Amino acid sequence: MIERDDIDVIDIVTPNHTHAEIAIAAAEAGKHIISEKPLALTVEEAEQMYEAVKKHKVKHMICHNYRYVPAVQYIKKLIDDGRLGRIYHFRANYLQDWIMDPNFPLVWRLKKEVSGSGALGDIGAHSIDLARFLIGEFKELVGTTETFIKERPIGEMSGGLKAQSGGNEVGEVTVDDAVAFIARFENGTLGTFEASRFAGGNRNKNKFEINGEKGSVRWDMENMNNLEVFFQDDEPGLQGFRLINCTEEHHPYVGAYWPAGHIIGYEHTFIHLIHEFMKGIVEDYQPTPNFEDGVKNQKVLEAIDQSSETKQWVKL
Amino acid sequence: MIERDDIDVIDIVTPNHTHAEIAIAAAEAGKHIISEKPLALTVEEAEQMYEAVKKHKVKHMICHNYRYVPAVQYIKKLIDDGRLGRIYHFRANYLQDWIMDPNFPLVWRLKKEVSGSGALGDIGAHSIDLARFLIGEFKELVGTTETFIKERPIGEMSGGLKAQSGGNEVGEVTVDDAVAFIARFENGTLGTFEASRFAGGNRNKNKFEINGEKGSVRWDMENMNNLEVFFQDDEPGLQGFRLINCTEEHHPYVGAYWPAGHIIGYEHTFIHLIHEFMKGIVEDYQPTPNFEDGVKNQKVLEAIDQSSETKQWVKL
Amino acid sequence: MIERDDIDVIDIVTPNHTHAEIAIAAAEAGKHIISEKPLALTVEEAEQMYEAVKKHKVKHMICHNYRYVPAVQYIKKLIDDGRLGRIYHFRANYLQDWIMDPNFPLVWRLKKEVSGSGALGDIGAHSIDLARFLIGEFKELVGTTETFIKERPIGEMSGGLKAQSGGNEVGEVTVDDAVAFIARFENGTLGTFEASRFAGGNRNKNKFEINGEKGSVRWDMENMNNLEVFFQDDEPGLQGFRLINCTEEHHPYVGAYWPAGHIIGYEHTFIHLIHEFMKGIVEDYQPTPNFEDGVKNQKVLEAIDQSSETKQWVKL
Amino acid sequence: MIERDDIDVIDIVTPNHTHAEIAIAAAEAGKHIISEKPLALTVEEAEQMYEAVKKHKVKHMICHNYRYVPAVQYIKKLIDDGRLGRIYHFRANYLQDWIMDPNFPLVWRLKKEVSGSGALGDIGAHSIDLARFLIGEFKELVGTTETFIKERPIGEMSGGLKAQSGGNEVGEVTVDDAVAFIARFENGTLGTFEASRFAGGNRNKNKFEINGEKGSVRWDMENMNNLEVFFQDDEPGLQGFRLINCTEEHHPYVGAYWPAGHIIGYEHTFIHLIHEFMKGIVEDYQPTPNFEDGVKNQKVLEAIDQSSETKQWVKL
Repeated sequence: MIERDDIDVIDIVTPNHTHAEIAIAAAEAGKHIISEKPLALTVEEAEQMYEAVKKHKVKHMICHNYRYVPAVQYIKKLIDDGRLGRIYHFRANYLQDWIMDPNFPLVWRLKKEVSGSGALGDIGAHSIDLARFLIGEFKELVGTTETFIKERPIGEMSGGLKAQSGGNEVGEVTVDDAVAFIARFENGTLGTFEASRFAGGNRNKNKFEINGEKGSVRWDMENMNNLEVFFQDDEPGLQGFRLINCTEEHHPYVGAYWPAGHIIGYEHTFIHLIHEFMKGIVEDYQPTPNFEDGVKNQKVLEAIDQSSETKQWVKL
Repeated sequence: MIERDDIDVIDIVTPNHTHAEIAIAAAEAGKHIISEKPLALTVEEAEQMYEAVKKHKVKHMICHNYRYVPAVQYIKKLIDDGRLGRIYHFRANYLQDWIMDPNFPLVWRLKKEVSGSGALGDIGAHSIDLARFLIGEFKELVGTTETFIKERPIGEMSGGLKAQSGGNEVGEVTVDDAVAFIARFENGTLGTFEASRFAGGNRNKNKFEINGEKGSVRWDMENMNNLEVFFQDDEPGLQGFRLINCTEEHHPYVGAYWPAGHIIGYEHTFIHLIHEFMKGIVEDYQPTPNFEDGVKNQKVLEAIDQSSETKQWVKL
Repeated sequence: MIERDDIDVIDIVTPNHTHAEIAIAAAEAGKHIISEKPLALTVEEAEQMYEAVKKHKVKHMICHNYRYVPAVQYIKKLIDDGRLGRIYHFRANYLQDWIMDPNFPLVWRLKKEVSGSGALGDIGAHSIDLARFLIGEFKELVGTTETFIKERPIGEMSGGLKAQSGGNEVGEVTVDDAVAFIARFENGTLGTFEASRFAGGNRNKNKFEINGEKGSVRWDMENMNNLEVFFQDDEPGLQGFRLINCTEEHHPYVGAYWPAGHIIGYEHTFIHLIHEFMKGIVEDYQPTPNFEDGVKNQKVLEAIDQSSETKQWVKL
Repeated sequence: MIERDDIDVIDIVTPNHTHAEIAIAAAEAGKHIISEKPLALTVEEAEQMYEAVKKHKVKHMICHNYRYVPAVQYIKKLIDDGRLGRIYHFRANYLQDWIMDPNFPLVWRLKKEVSGSGALGDIGAHSIDLARFLIGEFKELVGTTETFIKERPIGEMSGGLKAQSGGNEVGEVTVDDAVAFIARFENGTLGTFEASRFAGGNRNKNKFEINGEKGSVRWDMENMNNLEVFFQDDEPGLQGFRLINCTEEHHPYVGAYWPAGHIIGYEHTFIHLIHEFMKGIVEDYQPTPNFEDGVKNQKVLEAIDQSSETKQWVKL
């Protein structure tokens, strides 16, 4: 691909230990590059990659996609505009539960030599990137990692976060199941972080809260379109976290989407409906809701109109 | 379009008073048809459309897209499987607030001759369709409509739910701003419905609750991926509405999407990131997060590893 | 009691059909009166009671206690101060589920001759009173009642909302299980109401939402101390319902309670602790948490202090 | 008091540095003792107090009242019954915001010599006690404290969490504004803790989450009566945190309170109403709601009955 002239961009989505080689080759070939995170297995590798893209003057990005949630972009703007004032606290949790079963197999994500780390690099890395995006650079930290289940049956990922076990053989888990750390940022913010794959009931609980001198914000990926904001100078008695549905023209990116309150993802309801329609055509059955439903719905609508005018109950 | 052989499907998205003519012509030409809702302005028109699609044996659907929210499909399955038992209550609200400003202009949606009705046909119709999908057919009803702001400046829709006023001239609002009705269903369920465009703070609050003999469910479009379910036979002391993130392989359609907890719409965070990347290439600037961030994030990751091993604070 | 000079106040908590006789006798004896709601079984009875207290110039109240929730009093103030502007909608639900079991016996509350009505008078009456308190007088209404379970085993209330069945004999339920109605108020507000004892999972869901020209409020008894408020003139992009914990000096009554955020009921945590202490003294065992816990907690506190100073992990 | 025969119990609510002397004297006098937390300023003092109560065989408790929230007692029971299995995570935040204003004065709670510590001992101590109650003993920890505002005007507490400033003079804050620490428990649980008085919008956010092998729980003092519980063995597709209103006979202590859903604190709505009644008698005015409201409410109730029977709108 690197040799082809009609390819301008390389998007690296291969396992973590292959990123460096690909990225450096792509940079040398003058390709712009997007890389999945983590960028590399070590700082040294990452620095080599960074040197390569700088030297060859290609554009480069890393897929920390959570920066690009409209609510998160809006928080960034609030902070940059000074709406939260001096920041005191950044408090992040990234909690999942997909490997809690001790029989979940020893997939590549649980081997240090392939994935670099466990919850730390896979999900904790997102919290770290969000912290750097919103708060600034880290100054110092202390933390600890934990591996709750130390041996697992050998097996493979089969798609998504699902996996298949391969039998009775077991192997050692060489990455962390969970990590917790405390940090201070250059600007004096106190940060607390926790990432875990052993937090039952938390499917993808990527959330944070920021407390500043003038205001606070809360965000949670499981309700991605929502944002909670508190302002210290709201009228006494009427102070409280505002639950904002970040789906308005005032919010980054979503002006290009749907009317307010029709959250991102609304479009997929139509896609599912069209899927059903296409299936109906291909498999020759009549899907619903259809024109018969249209007639019946219309009868209800007219009955309401009639009831409103006559002030009577109307039978259907 | 009707004369073209390479077009198999007609999707009707024109104003409501044009649906019937287009649909009948399309049916006569043997095209499969999807129509925006409401199907027509009157029951009579709707019936003619239904006759046409039946006569010409084309597939037909109406865009009541909310039926195709994964959580709603899952509720349908729970009801069909008897998990809620006999249904006692269906309680629906569809609340918006986009025309509360008395200076919002008299757009086509506020004129009866073009749109047929106001909140009733625009949003109440969705609640009616959801009720028919989940509960069954209506038996009788009583209701009332209300127009809170009776005159508005003349003006036009300019996209989405936004509009532009045209000056000082005013005209009469001929549709309802809100509607409330009570219904009984064929199966004995008691239904209560309210639709309004005057419910401040409710951008698109399309929600319902169903109470049955064995369980209850709650759903709300503003948090589309969530579903609340209560079961009467849960252990005493541990009974409560379960907040389910309908993003698992067990839920309709979403098995084709992301890992659990990564809600529908998650993909757009990548789209926004790519948009930024493309903009960076076109306008020749270096977007973030990029490889420099990758290096800095990696340094934090390594510091945590080091702190975990040495049990010491680590400076960055 | 009426003849005693040292009794100034009569508090009527007997079954509904006895209120009138007691109240009239108490008024004639010059006693101030508080009555449980509903005041009487019929308007005629209620009017006689009202005439009696007016004639004898005694103070009188009816126990619509929900008016006296701090959050509700605060809503009243917001409305009176014009903070919500013209009111468009009042939307109330009072939902319970304590008689859903068909074997729940035919207690006095389910007999019309004793209780007057079912969900309507027992819980719907609270919504009606809240509506009159917050919105004003009713102008007209239409509604319907429903009895889902029409026969039940004979039995009695045994305390709270619990009951005991008496055997195989069954009797007819003569009150409503649920009621729904739509109303217009004198001031033009559109009201929707629903009260039910068949709404599974809703133990005591007494809630309402008010939508006005300038703002909206939401309240729910199950989280009594909370209040949600939305203002139309909040800054665009930052509009959302504020979740207010009504426990501050700014909120009615609670200035006399605890520091903000320590909700009403906080005091009972101490009462439970004291209960345990007294039990320990009486039954001669040593309850927890005790001074041993104080020592152990103190060791943790000192370890944190030490860790903070030395920047080291500390063992306990 | 110590010399009086008719006093059996001493309840110590004086400033923290006086606890030891009082407790030891009380123990020597054979009095049972309840002490406010923290027990003492140092472990040494605390141990002397503990020795004294053991030697004199008096009962002793420390006011960690949050153990006695019904929901917390119920969590303890779930853990003891093995319902959560092996515990992986304990995650506690105790967040307040009452001293964020830099002009809030240097009250005794901000002086180390009187109060021992700041957020750590005042509120972090509650999280520590809850952790020991629910999880077990601490094994090791690492943490850090922070004082964001280092100087404040001299002043005094004037009640509750309010205070009055005394002028222009300033003094040094000698306690922590915030503390964060990570801990391991004897049983292998990983604990994360944060306590702060600088978390804007969090009036009294005392909350924790526990993740175990078989289930998870969440609790938050601001909605004290609620409890969230997740079970790993709930049916796939129907797994989610259950929102339980801990107000049922199945939950500790609350069987002695109100019907389910009438949360602790419900009784105060009656107290406020009675307060209004008494004020009406004393100040000679007629409070509301009163018998006139009873009549008007009854008219609405009868109108609904009539509407339900006649299937007509009814005017009032």
